[in-house]
Amino acid sequence: MKVFIVFAHPDRRSFNGSLLKETIGQFEADGHEVRVTDLYGQKWKAQIDEDDFPITHKKGERLHIGSASGEAFVNKELTKDVMEEIEKLLWADLVIFQFPMWWFGMPAILKGWVERVLVCHFGYGVGEFTPTHYGDRFGEGTLEGKKAMLIVTAGGRKDHYSSRGILGPIDHLLFPINHGVFFCTGMTPLPAFVTYGTDSATEEVFESYANELKCLLKNIGSIKPINYRKQNSGDYDIPSLILREGLERPGETGYDIHLIKD
Amino acid sequence: MKVFIVFAHPDRRSFNGSLLKETIGQFEADGHEVRVTDLYGQKWKAQIDEDDFPITHKKGERLHIGSASGEAFVNKELTKDVMEEIEKLLWADLVIFQFPMWWFGMPAILKGWVERVLVCHFGYGVGEFTPTHYGDRFGEGTLEGKKAMLIVTAGGRKDHYSSRGILGPIDHLLFPINHGVFFCTGMTPLPAFVTYGTDSATEEVFESYANELKCLLKNIGSIKPINYRKQNSGDYDIPSLILREGLERPGETGYDIHLIKD
Repeated sequence: MKVFIVFAHPDRRSFNGSLLKETIGQFEADGHEVRVTDLYGQKWKAQIDEDDFPITHKKGERLHIGSASGEAFVNKELTKDVMEEIEKLLWADLVIFQFPMWWFGMPAILKGWVERVLVCHFGYGVGEFTPTHYGDRFGEGTLEGKKAMLIVTAGGRKDHYSSRGILGPIDHLLFPINHGVFFCTGMTPLPAFVTYGTDSATEEVFESYANELKCLLKNIGSIKPINYRKQNSGDYDIPSLILREGLERPGETGYDIHLIKD
Repeated sequence: MKVFIVFAHPDRRSFNGSLLKETIGQFEADGHEVRVTDLYGQKWKAQIDEDDFPITHKKGERLHIGSASGEAFVNKELTKDVMEEIEKLLWADLVIFQFPMWWFGMPAILKGWVERVLVCHFGYGVGEFTPTHYGDRFGEGTLEGKKAMLIVTAGGRKDHYSSRGILGPIDHLLFPINHGVFFCTGMTPLPAFVTYGTDSATEEVFESYANELKCLLKNIGSIKPINYRKQNSGDYDIPSLILREGLERPGETGYDIHLIKD
């Protein structure tokens, strides 16, 4: 399998960076190919702006990111760093985002990777947009068929992220990435691997998490994906994209209604 | 009132930028003082890294962002750009984040503002952390007493962000900011102002939204805040920070249980 890891921690010697080493080691031991984008290591440009479209956008003119990026993608005129990331995404069978949870989401540098790489006509604006078909997305799209997974280190306690914890359920905090980035672009998200209390973790805690992760990765082929409903499966009214009545469990609301339950 | 707006759109001529102009105009007409941080305009450094702690962190050594930023904050040794933002936050009575919704959240450049400005002992790590008190946060903290509000422009349709819409309810998508950033640091969040279908909006649509926003801002003093439960109010067990049983409405789950209902 071809594994592409987008890594967003500023220090490889951290708990998170040490987990990356274990991840790469396990995948390679199992005969998989691994490529890593180390965003901090390569000083990734974090913000999307007019410099991303040097040919399709005239500097100083009003910037429409959708059209400028879509045209640049189609004409292969995106910047070299972005083109390389697109090539890695197309190469991969499995895409991993590995990052520390900061302020309830991805680090800015990774958010900027999403904004700069998943451009119009590649990450969104794919397929036809008509009154009966609202694009190829959420289960369809350019990256269809690829698996995706989050590896996240959280400083807080596990119970703080539990279903009744003050920070909100971890699955809900990660929904905008699993559903909004991975599934939206056609990828099949696997359940996230999350470590807690990372800031104060001892060597023993690290070893325990590392072993759990390696065991998981060894069996990556058999992990059951997060079973989100596909946009164009008939479950949603089009073009309102509102879930049809009666598909969710009684009383279920919020993000959870977009999951197919067994 | 002193209003501090953090603005995160790359083009002031955009729909979003035009709304900013209306916002400033309305506040000033009503006699309020307004200060704006234009993140793109001032080429804000989007990612947090070791360069943020030039004195408290020795370049090349292992980076612990919590301790490096906390020490730099206490010693007033953060970089000048960050110190200026902290000063503006302390000055303000009302803090506004204004941004386009990209990939279900803030633009990277604004996420990086949060990471770099809301440092340890200022934005988090405030108060005592003991087995019976888990910090001053979620309703308490350095920024207690200040109001906060999101002004967001979304490209998608309003029904796509509705309670059963495929993108998820807008209030849930904004929870990590309203609850996780504003309320967590002690601020009192007001309901967000959101525009939809922004990419394809006509002049008439803009005028209609602008009028709605100006009317809202004119009456900003009387807007009812989002009534989140305070961490240290007794509603949560400490230190698990799990909501005590029976406080939510029957069947209610997820983010919604952290709201006090009338």
